[in-house]
Amino acid sequence: MPSYRAPVEDVLFLLNDVLGIHRHDNLPGFADASPDVVEAVLSEGGKLAEEMLAPVNLPGDQEGCTRNADGSVATPKGFKAAYDAYAAGGWMGLSVPEEFGGQGLPQILNTAIQEFASSANLALAMYPGLTQGAIAALLVHGSEEQKKTYLPKMVEGAWTGTMNLTEPHCGTDLGLLKTKAAPNGDGSYSLTGTKIFISAGEHDMSENIVHLVIARIEGAPAGTKGISLFVVPKFLVNADGSVGERNGVSCGSIEHKMGIHGNSTCVMNYDGAKGWLVGEANRGLNAMFVMMNEARLAVGVQGLGQSEVAYQNAVAYAKDRLQGRALTGAKAPEKAADPIIVHPDVRRTLMQIRAFNEAARALVLWTALQSDIVHRSQDAKERQAADDHMGLMTPVVKGVLTDRGFENAVAAQQLFGGHGYIEEWGMSQFVRDARIAMIYEGANGIQAMDLIGRKLPKDGGRAMMTFLGEVQTFIKDHNEDEALKAFTGPLQAALNDLQGATMWFMQNAMAKPDNAGAGATDYMHLLGLVAMGYMWARIAKAAAARKRQGTGSAERMDSKLVTGRFYMERMLPETAVRLARIKVGADTTMALPVEAF
Amino acid sequence: MPSYRAPVEDVLFLLNDVLGIHRHDNLPGFADASPDVVEAVLSEGGKLAEEMLAPVNLPGDQEGCTRNADGSVATPKGFKAAYDAYAAGGWMGLSVPEEFGGQGLPQILNTAIQEFASSANLALAMYPGLTQGAIAALLVHGSEEQKKTYLPKMVEGAWTGTMNLTEPHCGTDLGLLKTKAAPNGDGSYSLTGTKIFISAGEHDMSENIVHLVIARIEGAPAGTKGISLFVVPKFLVNADGSVGERNGVSCGSIEHKMGIHGNSTCVMNYDGAKGWLVGEANRGLNAMFVMMNEARLAVGVQGLGQSEVAYQNAVAYAKDRLQGRALTGAKAPEKAADPIIVHPDVRRTLMQIRAFNEAARALVLWTALQSDIVHRSQDAKERQAADDHMGLMTPVVKGVLTDRGFENAVAAQQLFGGHGYIEEWGMSQFVRDARIAMIYEGANGIQAMDLIGRKLPKDGGRAMMTFLGEVQTFIKDHNEDEALKAFTGPLQAALNDLQGATMWFMQNAMAKPDNAGAGATDYMHLLGLVAMGYMWARIAKAAAARKRQGTGSAERMDSKLVTGRFYMERMLPETAVRLARIKVGADTTMALPVEAF
Repeated sequence: MPSYRAPVEDVLFLLNDVLGIHRHDNLPGFADASPDVVEAVLSEGGKLAEEMLAPVNLPGDQEGCTRNADGSVATPKGFKAAYDAYAAGGWMGLSVPEEFGGQGLPQILNTAIQEFASSANLALAMYPGLTQGAIAALLVHGSEEQKKTYLPKMVEGAWTGTMNLTEPHCGTDLGLLKTKAAPNGDGSYSLTGTKIFISAGEHDMSENIVHLVIARIEGAPAGTKGISLFVVPKFLVNADGSVGERNGVSCGSIEHKMGIHGNSTCVMNYDGAKGWLVGEANRGLNAMFVMMNEARLAVGVQGLGQSEVAYQNAVAYAKDRLQGRALTGAKAPEKAADPIIVHPDVRRTLMQIRAFNEAARALVLWTALQSDIVHRSQDAKERQAADDHMGLMTPVVKGVLTDRGFENAVAAQQLFGGHGYIEEWGMSQFVRDARIAMIYEGANGIQAMDLIGRKLPKDGGRAMMTFLGEVQTFIKDHNEDEALKAFTGPLQAALNDLQGATMWFMQNAMAKPDNAGAGATDYMHLLGLVAMGYMWARIAKAAAARKRQGTGSAERMDSKLVTGRFYMERMLPETAVRLARIKVGADTTMALPVEAF
Repeated sequence: MPSYRAPVEDVLFLLNDVLGIHRHDNLPGFADASPDVVEAVLSEGGKLAEEMLAPVNLPGDQEGCTRNADGSVATPKGFKAAYDAYAAGGWMGLSVPEEFGGQGLPQILNTAIQEFASSANLALAMYPGLTQGAIAALLVHGSEEQKKTYLPKMVEGAWTGTMNLTEPHCGTDLGLLKTKAAPNGDGSYSLTGTKIFISAGEHDMSENIVHLVIARIEGAPAGTKGISLFVVPKFLVNADGSVGERNGVSCGSIEHKMGIHGNSTCVMNYDGAKGWLVGEANRGLNAMFVMMNEARLAVGVQGLGQSEVAYQNAVAYAKDRLQGRALTGAKAPEKAADPIIVHPDVRRTLMQIRAFNEAARALVLWTALQSDIVHRSQDAKERQAADDHMGLMTPVVKGVLTDRGFENAVAAQQLFGGHGYIEEWGMSQFVRDARIAMIYEGANGIQAMDLIGRKLPKDGGRAMMTFLGEVQTFIKDHNEDEALKAFTGPLQAALNDLQGATMWFMQNAMAKPDNAGAGATDYMHLLGLVAMGYMWARIAKAAAARKRQGTGSAERMDSKLVTGRFYMERMLPETAVRLARIKVGADTTMALPVEAF
């Protein structure tokens, strides 16, 4: 049975020492997040993940969800109790404004809790995760009445939320959607169509399910310009706010998936279901994008979450499993063999995952901090800079953290040998669960295209120029710092590769867009490598400062410095091959006629 | 439902044009393999894979194996019929000497058939695959009586074989094994112990199961020097060769695995089971190694097989799925959207898999040809060179082809978006099945250690020096060839990286073996990249020659040249980052104390 321990101390170090969140105490909610509140929130959230969510993860995978003949869906044993504990603890509304029942604390804290929950039980964490996404969309685009009707119930966890985009013939290309909305004349609409891959579409954990659904109003333009967003509750809501009669939406079937078996992935049938427009007609994609950005960051966190839990279990196994002797002579001569952690190839695997996890966590929290600034700052310039960062880093957090998170789960599984392939050990589940994060909320190839086609050129490349400038300034400011030499040198080389790639696209992709497409994935990973390299440099700076001050555990800080050096020496140099591939361009990639495949 | 088409034409091109197998017609069996025989064998084998094995692959995954209360194991519906067709076609003994009922044809042909079978149905292909491994071990190490008793029945497929190494507490480190063999005084032994992860350990497809089992004879030395190999039939064999009474070996349980559900993976209990020594006492590992080398090559082929079938299905989907428009303007304006194969990132994915598949197939067949030379040549020098090649390339074929094969299955699955995650589409199965090939027959980290610790230094590095020399000579000989410019240049750069890494180990790993361990996996992949690059250069040479001669389809040859260029431009340059990592050495990797993990 796999285990999980929330990395509370690491998060605290990142928040306090690396990101210095208390410099932002002028933002609403931040002053409330005093150091002891932050510590209490993280410890309690960690405990919830460890004690309530993790124990039902493996059994939930093995049992899965069941659709009954009446269209209801049963979640695995123990899921409802764990979900209830999550809701009762007030976690759903951690960062939601107090007027809707939330606690108004910074989103950065909620992000840390999302990581814990994803590590402990991804399938389960998705139920509140999707609810938080729906809350975010209603907060921004819902009418006052909609907010009053839905938010308090969702924030207390009595009602959950979903996001209905995909149809059988369209996923990425939502302009093709066929679901129709006909006005009923009373302000409501009647929705008809089929949605697929709807996570948490039907289940037994909440009194009501609030579906956010995109559809085309009769007579609206074709393509993406005719898409509107609707709120469609499973049960209509009475005037007094209580749950009323059943709406015309039902689960037609549930999917048999590779993983996240504990989450019910539904085909949802809308048969004249009553819905209400959210935001403006035909501007549904805009409203949905709010939800999608939140969701994309959360999915990136899921990649990190699976990498972290897989790492923890691989470490435990590597310390325990006796097999062979160290190349440098027996390390446990009293035993029949040495624990496999003595072998350099095992050590390399663990270091690689660990070096990713710490930097990815920093990148995620840094980005969540920008989200707080976007939503809470009074300073327009600060808001713009934060928004630039969010736009640039969202595809990276989603695409890179899930690609690597999956790879790391596979690498951790590998250390178990044959046992890794046996379901009872739980490593297979981490791999199977991590796999979905590369696909949903926009497959990673789409993230790469979003980065290179939209985020990079936006506002004349302002976001990227700012990022490049920030990293360059950091290097200049710390070039003479002996403690950071092992960091600034490699970071400069990687930054040069990123600059070279960016320049190459400016010169070669305008006239020939296929050059952008063929290099998009490499560019996304190149930016991810540099962003995580920058995170390591900042972590190293904070760790060195702690050592100088003599506060906290010197061993802990030394471990960070070693792990960071590993990243700089062995992982960051990958930027060179990414750049080389980008510069090849699209010619050979696109040369074959379609029939040749 | 996924589909499969055996790449018969590609194999023929490799055999005839690239490897020129008919230059070896002096070897026993090769003259019989006339061009029309080869073509007939491949077409028939392809048909068997397409029509009998592939259709029961997905259903077999969903049904899985069942252990009954009496310890018997039922394989999925249709498996026995497919297996019977395989046996009846004489495929089991394709390369086995005629005196034991085989056809005596070259192993290279059998290897091609193994790829087809692995692509079509990996779980099913393992039953004959393990039997062929057991046949190989008995051929080399069995007594005349053992050969006569077991081989004809195994060659006709009436009896199957297994390989029993692993125990709960030992996999890699077989010296720890606990299974005991006590002499019965009549030349037989009584075996007692538990073996785990025994593929095809018990099933309903054959009359008898011939287990090859390693155990320690009472009083034998501890460690690997006290391991003996035994043949232990499920049913004892009567003097007339018929199946007699049940032996004391049974299946205690079957494992719940991530994939290859159609293969029964058993815990085997030996309770005083009667067995007979194969080869010399205490020299069991040597005998087992014969089987393991055959098996390791076959597992490499499995990696290729999953990559190929995943590729074929991804191509079909990419041509069919309409989503978005080409960056360069609509390619199918009459449709609602373009097929996704127009998108450069999709194209890049397909090219990457395809460029691997063709080179990996060449490498596998080239290595199988060396195996034929080792076993059939009269020329000691030729045999030695072939044996050197086998030793060097076996870990590469096993480790690199399964690592990449899995990655490619994942990449192919990715193109399906959400559908890739749904079991009915079959892409998840390819990923889950491919995963085991990285683990069994020596996890890939062990392959890397085998390469760097044993194969590389053996005989003063003769095998590697010969390989480096061969590639260098090819480059020199074709440097002026305009048609090969795009190949020889990048190949030289990659070869330099391989030489640099080899040199670095010579200078830095003797005194500090951890430097070898920390760089082992990178080195294995570096060698794999160069070996496949060399294969592409040879394929390009053959394709260019065909074009000059005007024989065969020019479009087909052009496709090969483009695919090869893609490999040289975008995949081979990875050698640089592999070299960079190797040169970092082990210091940072090994720096953390164990408690810091």
